[in-house]
Amino acid sequence: MNHPMLKGKSRVIIEDIQPQIEGGLYPAKRTIGDRVDVVASIFGDGHDHIRAKVLFKKSGAKEWNEVEMLPLWNDEWKASFYVEEKGAYLFTITAWIDHFETWFDGFKKKADAKLDVHVELLEGAIILNKLSNTNASLKTYVRKLEDKTHYAQAVKLVLSEQFSKVVHENPLIENETTADREQEVLVESKKALFSTWYEFFPRSSSLEGGKHGTFKDCARLLPRISAMGFDVLYFPPIHPIGKINRKGKNNSVRSQPEDFGSPWAIGSDEGGHKSILPALGTIEDFKNLIADAKKIGIDIAMDIAFQCAPDHPYVKEHPEWFKQRPDGSIQFAENPPKKYQDIYPFNFETDDWRALWEELKSVFLYWMDQGIFIFRIDNPHTKPISFWQWVIDEVHKVNPDVIFLSEAFTRPKIMSSLGKVGFTQSYTYFTWRVTKREISEYMNELVNGASRNYFRPNFWPNTPDILPFHLQNQSENIFILRYALAATLSSSCGIYGPAYEFNENTPIEGREEYSNSEKFEIRHYDWKKTNRMTDIISIINKTRNENEALQSTWNFHLCSIENQNIIAYLKATDDLKNIFLVVVTLDPHGNQSGYVQLPKEKLKLTDKINIKLHDVVTDERYTWTQEWNFVEINPNKMPFHLFKIEIHESNM
Amino acid sequence: MNHPMLKGKSRVIIEDIQPQIEGGLYPAKRTIGDRVDVVASIFGDGHDHIRAKVLFKKSGAKEWNEVEMLPLWNDEWKASFYVEEKGAYLFTITAWIDHFETWFDGFKKKADAKLDVHVELLEGAIILNKLSNTNASLKTYVRKLEDKTHYAQAVKLVLSEQFSKVVHENPLIENETTADREQEVLVESKKALFSTWYEFFPRSSSLEGGKHGTFKDCARLLPRISAMGFDVLYFPPIHPIGKINRKGKNNSVRSQPEDFGSPWAIGSDEGGHKSILPALGTIEDFKNLIADAKKIGIDIAMDIAFQCAPDHPYVKEHPEWFKQRPDGSIQFAENPPKKYQDIYPFNFETDDWRALWEELKSVFLYWMDQGIFIFRIDNPHTKPISFWQWVIDEVHKVNPDVIFLSEAFTRPKIMSSLGKVGFTQSYTYFTWRVTKREISEYMNELVNGASRNYFRPNFWPNTPDILPFHLQNQSENIFILRYALAATLSSSCGIYGPAYEFNENTPIEGREEYSNSEKFEIRHYDWKKTNRMTDIISIINKTRNENEALQSTWNFHLCSIENQNIIAYLKATDDLKNIFLVVVTLDPHGNQSGYVQLPKEKLKLTDKINIKLHDVVTDERYTWTQEWNFVEINPNKMPFHLFKIEIHESNM
Repeated sequence: MNHPMLKGKSRVIIEDIQPQIEGGLYPAKRTIGDRVDVVASIFGDGHDHIRAKVLFKKSGAKEWNEVEMLPLWNDEWKASFYVEEKGAYLFTITAWIDHFETWFDGFKKKADAKLDVHVELLEGAIILNKLSNTNASLKTYVRKLEDKTHYAQAVKLVLSEQFSKVVHENPLIENETTADREQEVLVESKKALFSTWYEFFPRSSSLEGGKHGTFKDCARLLPRISAMGFDVLYFPPIHPIGKINRKGKNNSVRSQPEDFGSPWAIGSDEGGHKSILPALGTIEDFKNLIADAKKIGIDIAMDIAFQCAPDHPYVKEHPEWFKQRPDGSIQFAENPPKKYQDIYPFNFETDDWRALWEELKSVFLYWMDQGIFIFRIDNPHTKPISFWQWVIDEVHKVNPDVIFLSEAFTRPKIMSSLGKVGFTQSYTYFTWRVTKREISEYMNELVNGASRNYFRPNFWPNTPDILPFHLQNQSENIFILRYALAATLSSSCGIYGPAYEFNENTPIEGREEYSNSEKFEIRHYDWKKTNRMTDIISIINKTRNENEALQSTWNFHLCSIENQNIIAYLKATDDLKNIFLVVVTLDPHGNQSGYVQLPKEKLKLTDKINIKLHDVVTDERYTWTQEWNFVEINPNKMPFHLFKIEIHESNM
Repeated sequence: MNHPMLKGKSRVIIEDIQPQIEGGLYPAKRTIGDRVDVVASIFGDGHDHIRAKVLFKKSGAKEWNEVEMLPLWNDEWKASFYVEEKGAYLFTITAWIDHFETWFDGFKKKADAKLDVHVELLEGAIILNKLSNTNASLKTYVRKLEDKTHYAQAVKLVLSEQFSKVVHENPLIENETTADREQEVLVESKKALFSTWYEFFPRSSSLEGGKHGTFKDCARLLPRISAMGFDVLYFPPIHPIGKINRKGKNNSVRSQPEDFGSPWAIGSDEGGHKSILPALGTIEDFKNLIADAKKIGIDIAMDIAFQCAPDHPYVKEHPEWFKQRPDGSIQFAENPPKKYQDIYPFNFETDDWRALWEELKSVFLYWMDQGIFIFRIDNPHTKPISFWQWVIDEVHKVNPDVIFLSEAFTRPKIMSSLGKVGFTQSYTYFTWRVTKREISEYMNELVNGASRNYFRPNFWPNTPDILPFHLQNQSENIFILRYALAATLSSSCGIYGPAYEFNENTPIEGREEYSNSEKFEIRHYDWKKTNRMTDIISIINKTRNENEALQSTWNFHLCSIENQNIIAYLKATDDLKNIFLVVVTLDPHGNQSGYVQLPKEKLKLTDKINIKLHDVVTDERYTWTQEWNFVEINPNKMPFHLFKIEIHESNM
């Protein structure tokens, strides 16, 4: 369109094509089975009718598929298609002035006004004749419209339902405008969207108090985790832990000889990012664990923290990858005036950056060779964003199913950017969204905002780094409701498991950190125990695993309820074959009640409502026949309803 | 940035650069002296300090000018520059991690925390040494920071105000990121933004009742129009009017022999778009009128309506430019079931479109040769948008100062698109924005929305086509207040003059059209008369012409006043040397009053307020010493205040 002369007779303008990220610099993301809603501004001059279609195909395919676009309002048009295979899809838009439809519309108006339409019939015949080049069956219409001896019949024919169909099904595509460039949609595995994470420290896996856990101990816990319905088991770093400047319990600067240090202080004389802490076992033990987990549907996720303890082999082998200070020392991590003497960050501005990038890439490839394909990336926002773009792309060339979870709790644009350049999933602000308004607005931003095309949320109520204020010193009610929210709002969610199950709620005073944090010591858990919390998590996860409606974040639909302490939302598949209504109290203490509104249009309900609800947690059943329905929640009984909905046939 | 490897050590990301229209497809527009606010999202990894600058230059210039960007919030950065010459400007953005500033910030925090900073001093010396390559004066600092024998003095130096300035003035630019592409800003003449239009039908210019006016009659009216302060005199089409199917009075299908027809039914055996209706005079008469007008500061604007009467010469000479019907007739304009038999639209889909485009371009060039450089384009939204893009570009190659006013009262995206592709000004929805909320929201959209970069409003309270409902059968109060609004909200405004001055307010019942519309007949005005309305228009226009604050639309700033019937707003130059406060009642009937808030921050007022107000219409003077000030408006006295503000020096 740069030189308009090239457009000549094409009178339609196509602008603002969505999804499109940074002008097409990055692909929009979807997962298998996802819907792609294409929206664009499409308009032309005058009153002629416009028609438009989306063309889409797998990248490399010869033929385009087509789907008709329909106008919404304000000259915005929309069409949707589903992506059923992994890999890159392309789409574009074509639009044209459709003189057949324009003629048809004018004909109807003139005939309605009892005007003479003899000439109009002949014009219609000319158009039909043109179209009959590709659809010979239209010839009969040509003859009928040209037949002056049967004027009244011809008019009647054009005004018939049947003819309306002919117009719709035979677009007259002339002088069409096609969007300047094709847009890309990257389709990833189902797991990129739907995953349920359980995190624990493998060194705390022993059933015996005081003993350092091993991968073999971890293997014994797999059935327990599987029974709870988790499908990702995520470990903090499993590498040798630095011995120089090792941190003691509660992050004290000086450690005692018996202290085990922080797993994020990576590397020692025992090895670095491609090694395993000997106390956990051997690489063979780890591979066995991966295989055992796989057998029962669990993928092991590794934590990749690109930073080094002072005794990491890289420090000796590649001093040029670190920042040298004028006194000959290496710059440790700091956030002035705070100092982190047990951590050396990489200097990504080293002149040897190419070798550094290659080495870090090889870390991923090494663990992929051992059977790992899910990586949780520690603090990606403290490494160059373009490095991530490169390394994720390189890794995906080897295996496109590799999942990268971004642990960036930082400013919105940086979190977004990491999503754009390729991170599969991201930690979110959900951890701190507590009120109904906070949760609703955040969900609206995630689901309906621009980031929906590149930012896949993974909701965590807690992490080893974060015991949020609202969980501190609280009873299990709020732990239950926060997990219910996480697991039904977002299709990916996770918990720092044992602390959550066993109601660890003691903070360091005034901070959102655990007291006696497991980051700096081994904890002993009574892994043989389960409790009410464990049971509820199990039911929620089982329901997630069995119901497609809960396997997407994008189908979140807020429902009205006039009580600020209750949030209600619908999750349904597009075909309405699987529907859930989730009602959660945000008050862990007292009873709350209100009338919740069924979204009639969304559920395609007629006025004669008749739906069955089954609370899959309490096994209670209800029938609703009204649009507004009373719900009451006693948090001490169960702080949420997870209603599976069945719509009676008479209702559809 | 397509291949991140190319970015290597550059750690800063630049996104969402504004102004940028359709990804850079069209330039942003400004006029001479205008400010360009450049905003972008700029961020990097980690906590290092970022610095950024906008580079800008006239297109073709060798050297870039620079202006520092500063962070606003949420990783958005901004810088502004002024454009002082006509033509294309280019700008781009460069950003970098500034290790000097990062070091300086860390140093201050460590020093505050009483930490040892011996090594930090040496690091600072290394940075300063690097910078001394371009600024040798920094050598002295290097020596002082390196001098271990004067540690305390060195620390004190770094913490000094003076050193802070050194850091600011000596950016350490390394591994910078520069935006992918340069953005264009097109700078047009002052008149593109600031113009005051008076429209009348030249055939109604005679002082003698019943006589067809001529250009010579028009010339006699020039002093009157000039005295009112208008600088554009706009005529409906001046071409021969079709005789075939000519419309009669009040748009009747059959005309009487004495009827003059609609000037928009262009062309007859007397000529077409490059001819003049003989009754108006000769081309020489017209050129004389243009010259006479020019002498007293008035530019004549022509109406270009690209459509033909059935007897237009084009119809015979180029039947291929029109749509032929199967019965051998030519398709006239219609909006089924309505028919406009006196008008043939061009068929822009003709195979001969190139010749048609060239001929239409030649119409502009012909009139430019006669001395015209302002064109009001009739219904541009019924001709292809890409035609306009082409023809405006072609015309601007000949004379970049040519002004095109788009008469498109249509859907928002189409009006926007015409602005994007090159129209200088556009008619707006102001004509129908009546309530305070409607006016405020519309101004906010125009001034602060994306369209600010391409859509220049021209506010008209009436046109020959539109007598809006709120003016129908109303007294002059509302005519006065609507012109006061138009002329102080927007720097370009206009009226269909005689009808406005002389309070024509009789509609065709139920429609927004004038009864006995001048479009279809000659009207006689008592041009020797002026009245209160004329006087007020003159004062408003004089004030506009003498005060820069009223010569921009972009400086609109709404002021709070707790009365929904009064709207108050500030218009001030950036340097605050010229300031107006406009207070307009929207109630033409009764008294209204309220407290208006002075925008203290905008006016840089201290708490000790002392400002003088001079109402330039009533010549009343006030002194305000409070933030909130009482105003009262009696619409029968004067429905608005036009306060020129002087701020006492002690107040700045």
